[in-house]
Amino acid sequence: ADGPCAAAGVFTRNRVVGAPVRTTKPRVPSGEVRAVILNSGNANDCTGRQGEEDAHWMTVRAAEELGVDAAEKVLLCSTGIIGHLLPRPAIDRGVRELAPRVEATAAGLRAAAVAMMTTDTVPKLAEAAAGEARVVGVAKGAAMIAPSMGTMLAVLLTDAALSPEQCDRVLRAAVDETFNCITIDGDMSPSDTVLLLASGKAGPADEAAVAAAVRAVCESLALQIVRDGEGTEHVVTVDVRGLPTKAEARRVAESVCNSLLVKTAVCGNDPNWGRIVCAAGYAGVDFVEEDCSLSINGTSVYEAGLPVDYDEAAVSAAMAAGEVHIELTFTLGEASARLWTTDLTAEYVRLNSEYTT
Amino acid sequence: ADGPCAAAGVFTRNRVVGAPVRTTKPRVPSGEVRAVILNSGNANDCTGRQGEEDAHWMTVRAAEELGVDAAEKVLLCSTGIIGHLLPRPAIDRGVRELAPRVEATAAGLRAAAVAMMTTDTVPKLAEAAAGEARVVGVAKGAAMIAPSMGTMLAVLLTDAALSPEQCDRVLRAAVDETFNCITIDGDMSPSDTVLLLASGKAGPADEAAVAAAVRAVCESLALQIVRDGEGTEHVVTVDVRGLPTKAEARRVAESVCNSLLVKTAVCGNDPNWGRIVCAAGYAGVDFVEEDCSLSINGTSVYEAGLPVDYDEAAVSAAMAAGEVHIELTFTLGEASARLWTTDLTAEYVRLNSEYTT
Repeated sequence: ADGPCAAAGVFTRNRVVGAPVRTTKPRVPSGEVRAVILNSGNANDCTGRQGEEDAHWMTVRAAEELGVDAAEKVLLCSTGIIGHLLPRPAIDRGVRELAPRVEATAAGLRAAAVAMMTTDTVPKLAEAAAGEARVVGVAKGAAMIAPSMGTMLAVLLTDAALSPEQCDRVLRAAVDETFNCITIDGDMSPSDTVLLLASGKAGPADEAAVAAAVRAVCESLALQIVRDGEGTEHVVTVDVRGLPTKAEARRVAESVCNSLLVKTAVCGNDPNWGRIVCAAGYAGVDFVEEDCSLSINGTSVYEAGLPVDYDEAAVSAAMAAGEVHIELTFTLGEASARLWTTDLTAEYVRLNSEYTT
Repeated sequence: ADGPCAAAGVFTRNRVVGAPVRTTKPRVPSGEVRAVILNSGNANDCTGRQGEEDAHWMTVRAAEELGVDAAEKVLLCSTGIIGHLLPRPAIDRGVRELAPRVEATAAGLRAAAVAMMTTDTVPKLAEAAAGEARVVGVAKGAAMIAPSMGTMLAVLLTDAALSPEQCDRVLRAAVDETFNCITIDGDMSPSDTVLLLASGKAGPADEAAVAAAVRAVCESLALQIVRDGEGTEHVVTVDVRGLPTKAEARRVAESVCNSLLVKTAVCGNDPNWGRIVCAAGYAGVDFVEEDCSLSINGTSVYEAGLPVDYDEAAVSAAMAAGEVHIELTFTLGEASARLWTTDLTAEYVRLNSEYTT
């Protein structure tokens, strides 16, 4: 950015926190952010004091090459293997080559999205309008997409004028309903980072309009990540409705999304509803079977605790199209939650077991 | 049993509870138990009121054929597909054929262990002595062994004289340290049941000696289940030490055992320690990297938050033998926990996705 940006960041909740996250986090609220530098191939996690020095050095080099007057105005994201020191010569060469070519255009953004890719098969970009202002974003990965580089990075940019507090508010709300609602393998990386930078070039903006645009960009990027999951053949949307609290609805949805038996059944286009009800049952949420009904891709298979006589072949054929919608409906309240996940395929196992350190 | 037995049972904590568990649970404490009948192929779960009537009927038929004067003295375990009504004619035929052949001998016990098998590849039996008394047990399955029949059943028999309260105490303590310490895919079935029957034929017994024998039988059966996991190529022992409480140590061990990235790395003989530390980091237990060290099959790979320069090829070769020992050591307390799990293989996914309802 030509001038200072307000910024916000949402970071991994893992207790093992990589040097790039530790470096970036305190720099976010300054209102003076000028750039974000990302690298893939090395996460600079579990690298101790040397890792922190390398992370800071990387922002020093970026600031020098970009003509930014302080390293603290540069944010940093790294993704890649855990536990290896950052190769400074390679980073140095990259910074020197790239700095003169940085451009704030659609082509520049697309080049960044491509450069962030590791085992992603497509770059991930999204944009939305908020009145006169725009919000654009790029993202990479997700746990299963990047074996041993288990990491999700996203950067959103807007020309709306927002304070750091406004940035923080709209980003947290959007992430909670989007990136925090996708689960691929339940593994949470030490590098996960979502950043929002606001330049103010478009002048003052309606916060609600910007919030809606930020949410739309986050949702689009989150679903692009799920669709690009390594080995993924199905995208699964899990809706849980009718529980007393949102936390309980979410817990049931997570339990279904993380069940290996549900994920392998989806892989085989098998409407094996017993596995879904069973996963709901061990979520730690209080209910009895009579409170619970289930439909798969719009077909009711289980009603108030009893099996329904339905057309299995037709439901299986619908699942084979690659989109599976699981709806669990309870009679115990008004709260609901929606999560997205993938199936679990032999290809996922192959990719994640054949990758070696 | 010729006469009344004291009994104890440990059952699934799933909120979806099958009719056999609902039928058996209230019958356990009577001190009058005479028999246990098991069937595989149909779990009689999610079958409503008709399922409960079928479960009771099954114990009525067993009592009649065995000459037991009340159905309430017969316990029941079922395993198999969820959501299908029990085929009464098949059960009736089985009860009539088997009742005259029941014998309380080693051969009879082995025949039962074989009959319980679903996709198990070997029958699971164990025994231990407690002074004059003996404890024997049979078990079947575990989630991944029995796709869509996700269920673990075990029955232990002893001729020690124990009260129902003593049975309950020794069984709960043993299960907590054995069957509740194996996790294959994190899926908890609505049918899981472990029963202990004590006939008293060997006369009064030292409770501590019986407790040790019950624990030994449970541990042997639990490990036999893990070793027989479908598609399993590795057995993984996870030891977590040095945390303030046992609950925290267990939480870290569970997080490691349930991580798909750890399980697929083990499948590939990959000492990918970053994935293990990362899984510990999102267990929700408070620590910083400097508190944590890790060894794999006795080789230190991560010390006080820093990578160790170790021989990767040698550790990978040791893993290839099929037994993997992960030791996470913290500096934050005295509590520890040990869990057992398996790797995750493409064969597991194939078996669980190709199985259709």
